[in-house]
Amino acid sequence: MVRVVKRRSEKAGLPPGTLVHIGEKKVEKPTITVIEYDEMNFQEKEVDTIEDCFPYKEKEAVTWINVEGIHRVEILEKIGDCFGLHPLVLEDILNTNQRPKLEDYVEYIYIVLKMLYYDGKRDGITVEQVSLILGPNYVLSFQEGIAGDIFDPMRAQIRNAKGRIRKMGADYLAYTLIDSVVDNYFVIIEELGEDIELLEEDLVTDPRPETLTGVQKLKREMIFLRRSVWPLREVIGTLERRESPLVKESTGLYLRDVYDHTIQVIDTIETFRDMLSGMLDIYLSSISNRLNEVVKVLTIISTIFIPVTFITGAYGMNFRYMPELQYRYGYPLVWLVIVIIAALMLLYFRRRKWI
Amino acid sequence: MVRVVKRRSEKAGLPPGTLVHIGEKKVEKPTITVIEYDEMNFQEKEVDTIEDCFPYKEKEAVTWINVEGIHRVEILEKIGDCFGLHPLVLEDILNTNQRPKLEDYVEYIYIVLKMLYYDGKRDGITVEQVSLILGPNYVLSFQEGIAGDIFDPMRAQIRNAKGRIRKMGADYLAYTLIDSVVDNYFVIIEELGEDIELLEEDLVTDPRPETLTGVQKLKREMIFLRRSVWPLREVIGTLERRESPLVKESTGLYLRDVYDHTIQVIDTIETFRDMLSGMLDIYLSSISNRLNEVVKVLTIISTIFIPVTFITGAYGMNFRYMPELQYRYGYPLVWLVIVIIAALMLLYFRRRKWI
Amino acid sequence: MVRVVKRRSEKAGLPPGTLVHIGEKKVEKPTITVIEYDEMNFQEKEVDTIEDCFPYKEKEAVTWINVEGIHRVEILEKIGDCFGLHPLVLEDILNTNQRPKLEDYVEYIYIVLKMLYYDGKRDGITVEQVSLILGPNYVLSFQEGIAGDIFDPMRAQIRNAKGRIRKMGADYLAYTLIDSVVDNYFVIIEELGEDIELLEEDLVTDPRPETLTGVQKLKREMIFLRRSVWPLREVIGTLERRESPLVKESTGLYLRDVYDHTIQVIDTIETFRDMLSGMLDIYLSSISNRLNEVVKVLTIISTIFIPVTFITGAYGMNFRYMPELQYRYGYPLVWLVIVIIAALMLLYFRRRKWI
Amino acid sequence: MVRVVKRRSEKAGLPPGTLVHIGEKKVEKPTITVIEYDEMNFQEKEVDTIEDCFPYKEKEAVTWINVEGIHRVEILEKIGDCFGLHPLVLEDILNTNQRPKLEDYVEYIYIVLKMLYYDGKRDGITVEQVSLILGPNYVLSFQEGIAGDIFDPMRAQIRNAKGRIRKMGADYLAYTLIDSVVDNYFVIIEELGEDIELLEEDLVTDPRPETLTGVQKLKREMIFLRRSVWPLREVIGTLERRESPLVKESTGLYLRDVYDHTIQVIDTIETFRDMLSGMLDIYLSSISNRLNEVVKVLTIISTIFIPVTFITGAYGMNFRYMPELQYRYGYPLVWLVIVIIAALMLLYFRRRKWI
Amino acid sequence: MVRVVKRRSEKAGLPPGTLVHIGEKKVEKPTITVIEYDEMNFQEKEVDTIEDCFPYKEKEAVTWINVEGIHRVEILEKIGDCFGLHPLVLEDILNTNQRPKLEDYVEYIYIVLKMLYYDGKRDGITVEQVSLILGPNYVLSFQEGIAGDIFDPMRAQIRNAKGRIRKMGADYLAYTLIDSVVDNYFVIIEELGEDIELLEEDLVTDPRPETLTGVQKLKREMIFLRRSVWPLREVIGTLERRESPLVKESTGLYLRDVYDHTIQVIDTIETFRDMLSGMLDIYLSSISNRLNEVVKVLTIISTIFIPVTFITGAYGMNFRYMPELQYRYGYPLVWLVIVIIAALMLLYFRRRKWI
Repeated sequence: MVRVVKRRSEKAGLPPGTLVHIGEKKVEKPTITVIEYDEMNFQEKEVDTIEDCFPYKEKEAVTWINVEGIHRVEILEKIGDCFGLHPLVLEDILNTNQRPKLEDYVEYIYIVLKMLYYDGKRDGITVEQVSLILGPNYVLSFQEGIAGDIFDPMRAQIRNAKGRIRKMGADYLAYTLIDSVVDNYFVIIEELGEDIELLEEDLVTDPRPETLTGVQKLKREMIFLRRSVWPLREVIGTLERRESPLVKESTGLYLRDVYDHTIQVIDTIETFRDMLSGMLDIYLSSISNRLNEVVKVLTIISTIFIPVTFITGAYGMNFRYMPELQYRYGYPLVWLVIVIIAALMLLYFRRRKWI
Repeated sequence: MVRVVKRRSEKAGLPPGTLVHIGEKKVEKPTITVIEYDEMNFQEKEVDTIEDCFPYKEKEAVTWINVEGIHRVEILEKIGDCFGLHPLVLEDILNTNQRPKLEDYVEYIYIVLKMLYYDGKRDGITVEQVSLILGPNYVLSFQEGIAGDIFDPMRAQIRNAKGRIRKMGADYLAYTLIDSVVDNYFVIIEELGEDIELLEEDLVTDPRPETLTGVQKLKREMIFLRRSVWPLREVIGTLERRESPLVKESTGLYLRDVYDHTIQVIDTIETFRDMLSGMLDIYLSSISNRLNEVVKVLTIISTIFIPVTFITGAYGMNFRYMPELQYRYGYPLVWLVIVIIAALMLLYFRRRKWI
Repeated sequence: MVRVVKRRSEKAGLPPGTLVHIGEKKVEKPTITVIEYDEMNFQEKEVDTIEDCFPYKEKEAVTWINVEGIHRVEILEKIGDCFGLHPLVLEDILNTNQRPKLEDYVEYIYIVLKMLYYDGKRDGITVEQVSLILGPNYVLSFQEGIAGDIFDPMRAQIRNAKGRIRKMGADYLAYTLIDSVVDNYFVIIEELGEDIELLEEDLVTDPRPETLTGVQKLKREMIFLRRSVWPLREVIGTLERRESPLVKESTGLYLRDVYDHTIQVIDTIETFRDMLSGMLDIYLSSISNRLNEVVKVLTIISTIFIPVTFITGAYGMNFRYMPELQYRYGYPLVWLVIVIIAALMLLYFRRRKWI
Repeated sequence: MVRVVKRRSEKAGLPPGTLVHIGEKKVEKPTITVIEYDEMNFQEKEVDTIEDCFPYKEKEAVTWINVEGIHRVEILEKIGDCFGLHPLVLEDILNTNQRPKLEDYVEYIYIVLKMLYYDGKRDGITVEQVSLILGPNYVLSFQEGIAGDIFDPMRAQIRNAKGRIRKMGADYLAYTLIDSVVDNYFVIIEELGEDIELLEEDLVTDPRPETLTGVQKLKREMIFLRRSVWPLREVIGTLERRESPLVKESTGLYLRDVYDHTIQVIDTIETFRDMLSGMLDIYLSSISNRLNEVVKVLTIISTIFIPVTFITGAYGMNFRYMPELQYRYGYPLVWLVIVIIAALMLLYFRRRKWI
Repeated sequence: MVRVVKRRSEKAGLPPGTLVHIGEKKVEKPTITVIEYDEMNFQEKEVDTIEDCFPYKEKEAVTWINVEGIHRVEILEKIGDCFGLHPLVLEDILNTNQRPKLEDYVEYIYIVLKMLYYDGKRDGITVEQVSLILGPNYVLSFQEGIAGDIFDPMRAQIRNAKGRIRKMGADYLAYTLIDSVVDNYFVIIEELGEDIELLEEDLVTDPRPETLTGVQKLKREMIFLRRSVWPLREVIGTLERRESPLVKESTGLYLRDVYDHTIQVIDTIETFRDMLSGMLDIYLSSISNRLNEVVKVLTIISTIFIPVTFITGAYGMNFRYMPELQYRYGYPLVWLVIVIIAALMLLYFRRRKWI
């Protein structure tokens, strides 16, 4: 449940703009990485104090400052001072409860993304909130700091001048970061697809209550996934259409591409939801079918043996005057009657296709 | 049911604008608090008669008049006269049946909010209607008067000049009041989330009819919560976009922030609704599963013992000529047959995975 | 079913604008009431022939002509001639099958409303179609004529100059008539709410098939209610926004008020629908639960007694050589075995929480 | 199924605009009727070859050419040549698979309607596609040619100069044709309403699998009906709003009237759908209820007689030493015990309200 | 599952615009066909290397280059260079995971379509992605290369100058290609319709779990089909409305025609979905009905024989003093009682309509 509602209530009553970290602390010490590049030059370093990265603000080249670990409020405050960020932006970066959103503060654009990780065995989907600030010549990115940085491939691209990233501006860098988050959704969707496939096989071969629990668990992951991706679509759509001078027209085409990917993800989620609903129907009807099978066995055995048991009971009575008992062939005759009754019953069941 | 439809019918037939209090009387005597402040000065007092607070209307500083307890119609009338409120506004303040809404009367803006309190054990969600009037330099707030004032933290902020509230105008004050109501929704959502979690555990370990009743009760709370929050979204959205001179541009950013919070609340409510629906499916299938279990036990016992009972019945018959009865090993042979039949049955059940 | 589709088919093939009354005749003889008023003067009379009310058309004061009973086509025709109404309007007034709607004929506005009456015991909701024609200084209202006029309080207000009605124009009169219809919906909603509450208690204490029928009946009333109220919302919204010179700006505020009431009614209907759906789920699961209970009793009794009956059967066999029968303590030993088997079964049931 | 997908696949691969009749041939030989009228004159004749009706195109009076039977492609081709119809229009007239639609070709407007016939006993709803071409002074109508022409009343109106049809132009004629199709929907809806009522009675008195089949069949008719009426609403709405010089303003009011009727039809269809869904719920719960009843009888009989049969079994054993058997009152005492057990069981069932 | 999510994850981390083929390789060697035509001339040839088709770009006549098999990235790259295609377009052509979409690059329009094939017995629906590039005087089409080219009829039309295709430009060619894809949907829909019909018959005559699996399989095909057709509607709508100089007005009418067809397809899919949902309800209720039947048989046999077996048990007891046993007519009297009990039971069942 932590996933659905993080303890935001502690903030109730504090004045707006108060900086409080809401969420789990995921790394001990925040790491700050600064990358500066233009088509010719490239410089990358890890800095200790946030003051070290301020000079970059004024440069012509593109500067990318990545902060991993956001629970140290004072770091945020200093960055906010240096880059002139609105207190509400800082508050939102600290609050990992955000939905994906985009806010245009004219001088910079603030974007919230949700990076997702999936582990079907244990916890299902876990989330890391990623905040981006896109300025005229800089990008600030804030991660909660779950192990395994998804931005590493981007860094490699910049370092090795692969693709067109070194020739483009800060807006293109922001685009690649968003793109890498969306690309990651496809990975998750494939894993979820495999889990659905496994459940489907279970459903056909051996439906058990655990299968249902599995279906429900995946259904919930879908709700969760949807919640992270749906608003993203709007975010990217806004970014693409926006006439902010911060986003160049050449980047617009690329944004339309990520937009398409987001719709593909949403589409697949909806398909999965429909599939899981269908699986629920199959499960419920398979329970009913099994009940039918069990009751049919009971009925067949009972309706064959209860009447013939009655006959044996009748000739087990101790009345003094029971003429049949004295007959020479009474006993074999009774057996004959019993066999006929049983045969008729079997015939009846056969005709009704029960056996 | 009181919660869903309050006795509004009494008003049918009265001319519009007739002031009648609809709802429960929640406090004996209304309390009127007046706070006057600007960046330098601050004054707070509780007044006895409403006339005492009229002089404040003309001042330059921001005046906040808070009325707790709205069942005394004459107080409303006087305030209405003094601040030039439309009779329909007064009527709406008195009618605690309102949905959250915003009405722009040019000289002032009238806003209706729903303050919620949750007590899972007893009554579920209870509501207090909060009406705000935002004028150029004053804010009037009307509460029904449930114990424990949610505006206390705001008062403390003004008193201690915490945050930026003392530097801003009446619109910022109105914003903080709205913000405190929305912040409170997060508290309720967390409590509901915990109750859902408890129910889910029950569902897995020991699903009983009471579990279903619990699910349904929470579902109803969701309906109710939704009804209070959905229109609020529109209210705040309207306030943010509105070009009323009463709302300054600097406050717009803050309103966008509350707007985001409202959407987060709505989002979580929808997620909860989906989760509760899933729980209903699990409950229903667990009933079916249990029926299956019970019937399986019946079938296994019956199909093993009914046939062998028939055999004992057959050799309990009293026919004079029953050759088997005279056999030396007739009795142990019958036992052998019985054991074989039972073993075959068990084998059959094992093969069908019933045992 | 009459309520859902009235015999409109009779009209198929007639040219449009042909005046035919569709619906039940609810009063024997139509009653025509004329009220004329301005701030100073007031005159009210019941007229015999419709011609008597024509002079009023030209006066400066507000004239309200109310016709109760619409099955006399010739009356409609004369009024149509006098006030210059379009044949399609007259046709619609006669056809009680209309949805609430508003049509602006520039010189007058034609409004259709649905007055509702609820009688939970007998028929559920019954409808009376109310047509209003709002002209520059007159209002014509047409009712089907169900006993108990809902416009009586309006008449009293005019007569006694209560509220602001005498100071306002024809548009305000039209507003009060609409308002009285909407106010009446709250009465119905409260009654429906009470019926839902009663059903809910039944559902908890003693769910029977009749409870389900009751739920379905209420569900249908909701469908019906919704059908009458949803389009009304649009009607009033259109009236409020409309820039027709027939509706003065001062009346706009009042219309917004009725608009809010309509939304409250719709809101409550939706809540009721959700509640009734939840009740259906509870009912279905309670049937399943009861089946479980019944089958459990059968299973417990059967699984205890069927095996032990087999044992008695075994020692009731008549084989000549059955050594146990000769044992001194054979009989009590068999009882001991029986008791042990029964005890083990009970233990098993206890462990599975069946008893 | 024919109804849902007609064999359109034969056309795959042919160039667009190729004239192929898709659908059943419903009459042997097409009938062509020409009516020419203005306020004073009226002329009606059945023509043999389509060339006979070409002179009418140039006249001032309104010309209505009605073609019954559309499978003769060459007739269509000639009309197309004469009136300058686009090949795609001709193709669409021939393809009876169309949805209702309106296409404005500036010089004429092309409208597709669906005429419906209902026969609850046999086939349910059957459809006839009606195509209208509205030109400046002519209307062309194409019917598939099912027996019983629905346009006969229109012809009578023109012939006898009833209503205002002779005084109006071609657009009014088109309106009356559309109106007659929509009026016909009311007839079908009433018949469907009666069938639903019959099914409802069955559901209460004697629910059988056939009742369910009936409900499903009606549900499907609703899907089908909806598919024909929904797009019609848009067609008429477009026609009403359209500023085509072909539709005069005076006709606009009449079109608004048909538009209202279409919405009434849609409204009723939705109500019927909701009602049929409710009937499904009642049917399913009535099956469950009956299972409960059956199982209850089984349980009552079994739990009373199985224990007492065990007792008789016990005293039917043949142990040599069974002291009770020698007791003077052993036999009546056993009967007493049996009666007491049975009575206690009955009491238990009574307390659980099973009997 | 492959169908729902193709392995797109391999691309995560690569810079955007990197050309990687995503999907199965469906043909060994790509085939490139070039067709050049105007009203007078026609030339068609299969080329070996892509360079052979570059001269066509500059000609006045319409050039259609069709590439079957898209897994050879270098071919795409060369075409991209020659026709100046954006890298993102090439990336999208290679990625067979696309939804149908349209992108306007001013100089050319890029369209993605989904060609569908249905094989009810084996795999259900399989998809081939078709990409079109519409330039001022050329059309490029890219197919994955499933056997049996759907564009053959188009080629024949051009070759034989059938229809108007040779007189029109590249936009009309693009239209015919789209039209042929949509026409193909009708073929699939008819096949699906037949499969639904077969399932419905099964459902009535002999509902088995496989019937349900069949229903679910078809439901999934519908989800899949819908996913391919829904966005196509928007694509064609955009193309029709678009004011790109690449699409001539005369082609607009034809595009409206395909647009209508797409809506017909969507309409039928929705109808099928509703029908399949209804079939699920029927299946579930038929399981319940059969359970009822089985349990009824059990109950009837049990309730008749269990009481009479008890009676025989009673007179099988071995008490010394059992006066009835000595009666002359005790034995026939017991039979009489048994027959009466059985008859009463049968009467009871008859009255409850169980037999």
